Amino acid sequence: MKDTPIVILNFKTYLESTGERALELASICQDVADETGVNMAVAPQHMDLHRVSEAVEIQVLAQHIDPVDAGGHTGSVLAECARDSGADGTLINHSEKRMQLADIEWVVSRMRELEMMSVVCTNNVMTTAAAAALGPDFVAVEPPELIGSGIPVSKAEPEVITGSVDAVKKVNPEVSVLCGAGISTGDDMKAAVDLGAEGVLLASGIILADSPRDALLDLVSKV
Amino acid sequence: MKDTPIVILNFKTYLESTGERALELASICQDVADETGVNMAVAPQHMDLHRVSEAVEIQVLAQHIDPVDAGGHTGSVLAECARDSGADGTLINHSEKRMQLADIEWVVSRMRELEMMSVVCTNNVMTTAAAAALGPDFVAVEPPELIGSGIPVSKAEPEVITGSVDAVKKVNPEVSVLCGAGISTGDDMKAAVDLGAEGVLLASGIILADSPRDALLDLVSKV
Amino acid sequence: MKDTPIVILNFKTYLESTGERALELASICQDVADETGVNMAVAPQHMDLHRVSEAVEIQVLAQHIDPVDAGGHTGSVLAECARDSGADGTLINHSEKRMQLADIEWVVSRMRELEMMSVVCTNNVMTTAAAAALGPDFVAVEPPELIGSGIPVSKAEPEVITGSVDAVKKVNPEVSVLCGAGISTGDDMKAAVDLGAEGVLLASGIILADSPRDALLDLVSKV
Amino acid sequence: MKDTPIVILNFKTYLESTGERALELASICQDVADETGVNMAVAPQHMDLHRVSEAVEIQVLAQHIDPVDAGGHTGSVLAECARDSGADGTLINHSEKRMQLADIEWVVSRMRELEMMSVVCTNNVMTTAAAAALGPDFVAVEPPELIGSGIPVSKAEPEVITGSVDAVKKVNPEVSVLCGAGISTGDDMKAAVDLGAEGVLLASGIILADSPRDALLDLVSKV
Repeated sequence: MKDTPIVILNFKTYLESTGERALELASICQDVADETGVNMAVAPQHMDLHRVSEAVEIQVLAQHIDPVDAGGHTGSVLAECARDSGADGTLINHSEKRMQLADIEWVVSRMRELEMMSVVCTNNVMTTAAAAALGPDFVAVEPPELIGSGIPVSKAEPEVITGSVDAVKKVNPEVSVLCGAGISTGDDMKAAVDLGAEGVLLASGIILADSPRDALLDLVSKV
Repeated sequence: MKDTPIVILNFKTYLESTGERALELASICQDVADETGVNMAVAPQHMDLHRVSEAVEIQVLAQHIDPVDAGGHTGSVLAECARDSGADGTLINHSEKRMQLADIEWVVSRMRELEMMSVVCTNNVMTTAAAAALGPDFVAVEPPELIGSGIPVSKAEPEVITGSVDAVKKVNPEVSVLCGAGISTGDDMKAAVDLGAEGVLLASGIILADSPRDALLDLVSKV
Repeated sequence: MKDTPIVILNFKTYLESTGERALELASICQDVADETGVNMAVAPQHMDLHRVSEAVEIQVLAQHIDPVDAGGHTGSVLAECARDSGADGTLINHSEKRMQLADIEWVVSRMRELEMMSVVCTNNVMTTAAAAALGPDFVAVEPPELIGSGIPVSKAEPEVITGSVDAVKKVNPEVSVLCGAGISTGDDMKAAVDLGAEGVLLASGIILADSPRDALLDLVSKV
Repeated sequence: MKDTPIVILNFKTYLESTGERALELASICQDVADETGVNMAVAPQHMDLHRVSEAVEIQVLAQHIDPVDAGGHTGSVLAECARDSGADGTLINHSEKRMQLADIEWVVSRMRELEMMSVVCTNNVMTTAAAAALGPDFVAVEPPELIGSGIPVSKAEPEVITGSVDAVKKVNPEVSVLCGAGISTGDDMKAAVDLGAEGVLLASGIILADSPRDALLDLVSKV
């Protein structure tokens, strides 16, 4: 599960990664994983998750899971339903879906119980350290101002990555650090890995590329 | 679409209506609709929606749609994704997923643009009148204290139904009123229809019944 | 209470309207009300409200009240506490503090019970109609994209004002319509009143003016 | 500031601690601090904060501060306004006002910049460890199920206190651990301190007591 470096592609809610196009994109990720041997995972929208998980072998993550037990929670994403639908884990606390601290802890613990993968997103070194204390599989640090900017965190704010790696090592060395925000090229990813990251979380740089396949192949070309 | 009386079964996040069991339950609803001619719709969890919509002919509703356009909205439910997944419409503002007024308006308008059905849930006569002003297809009034109680609103608070019907007639007579909360038997539903409701929204009374099929057949037996 | 036209100055969280400067600004509003006879009200921050209410005779509104009864609600704004602190009413559902529909209804009803003034903010004609159905004293429509823009709604989107006035007349003619967003000059306010508004809700155009006193005198000079 | 053991009395939104009664209660806390030498702090409602801070010498905390800079944030609690109103610090993330992780970090950092005290509330050992990583002055752990229960955490779940103390020591030993939930007597407080807590956060056990003064005197009688 934690075969690193890992590339996690967050499909967000782009039309370019919705419905049939989600299936195509997931299939491209599968191909690139097969061709290059790099560990890849995809995080499609809730309603696309089941058919994506049926279509590919690589890991499929939910974009969010709600901190609720089965019962009367209309509109919520239930962990058991995610698992039944083929999810291998979930993103938690993405900057576009921020969660309360107590709820992050709840979902991380639930994922552990269900033997599913947890990737907690954070926005700076301090919140990365806090998230690491909860014991998820991964923490993915993304300075919000760089998300979707095309400016890679590994160049613009390398100290966020190294600071996160150091902080996590101190708080809970079993947690792996990923980074995101502005990552799209092989150079960006190599820089991230050189700074201590064990992978990347990315979205628009690949999804909106002229050729997502070429963009992915470039991304993983230097690691 | 507005063939009434309509029975909308909200699957919520019960394990009894998750995954394979969501498919079974939807199939039962299909059978009952076919056998009795009553218009039925189901609202499965997000991750179950696509396969449920592939399996049945009756209308399938999302439990919630977020007020967002396509783009960077990780974890949100995009209207276009719901439509691509086979949703014919959505519940909006369920008491377990309350929304801001501006967001309810956004989703009702978006459903209208996409020619999808909108069912706004409300909690009393005043909010029913407010919701009707937004012009959805249906308003479903459910006194929160009766939800999941087994005490039918049509008996415990008939004035909520008649008051809602009157208020909606005044504000926007094209909107149809449904009622929910505690409804489970044929007598409950008949009472609701007699009070002016054009259908019911229900959940646990059917989902947790020993035989959902028998419960549904009883529910629609007197209309 | 509903002596119109009314000018409501929302202090927001500007430093220019915090603490001692809130007192000064409220005092200026009092002076302008005294000099011109125009009905004015101020909405200071929660923590400034008590001393502002002690210092002026004009109406003082809370910026927000939470939908809670007395009890265990740490951090919430209790209606009774607002009243004890000297508030004559409250803004509800400001675009910077959007509320759920059910909660708006709760607070409007609570204000009615406590004989306090309610001003529900809305973002377009549809939500204005919905808010009017709840029976507040005022609905203040503010297209969000114009808030703080310096572009007056009365010029940029006059149809929002006339449409709101028409819609409210139909749903509940006892509700008065205010407008906001970009209003700062006498011409803006006159245009708003000519379009049917019974007053204005404004903030930065006055608070950040070189001379708030002069700006206010200009604002009310043509009505 | 961190003179321990400290007793923090959260006034919540009880009528018994609103308005004039907030002043009386704060004055009682002042008396008990003077008589016993125990460090006490009070956390009144936002609208009561300024007059309470004018009336007493002991520390006054806000119940909540919003993660916003000065500007357009109607209805929010601005850190600068709290400071100007006499607040010496704030509770953060109380179980009745849960916050997002990124926002907790923002407010803790802001309090540090303004040299104000920060008390982050948490619900279990894991979230306590996470909160400690953010470097607040205090973490106050309160199992939610015991809040307002009358069953003291120091008896019902002593391992939550010792586990929190151990976890915080590992993550950031400069942070002090308080505990809350169900604490009301001298025995409860002594047990908490014996387990490693440096003080208590409490509310209803004192506020709703027949004699808050006697209850407070009893509370601090054994430390």
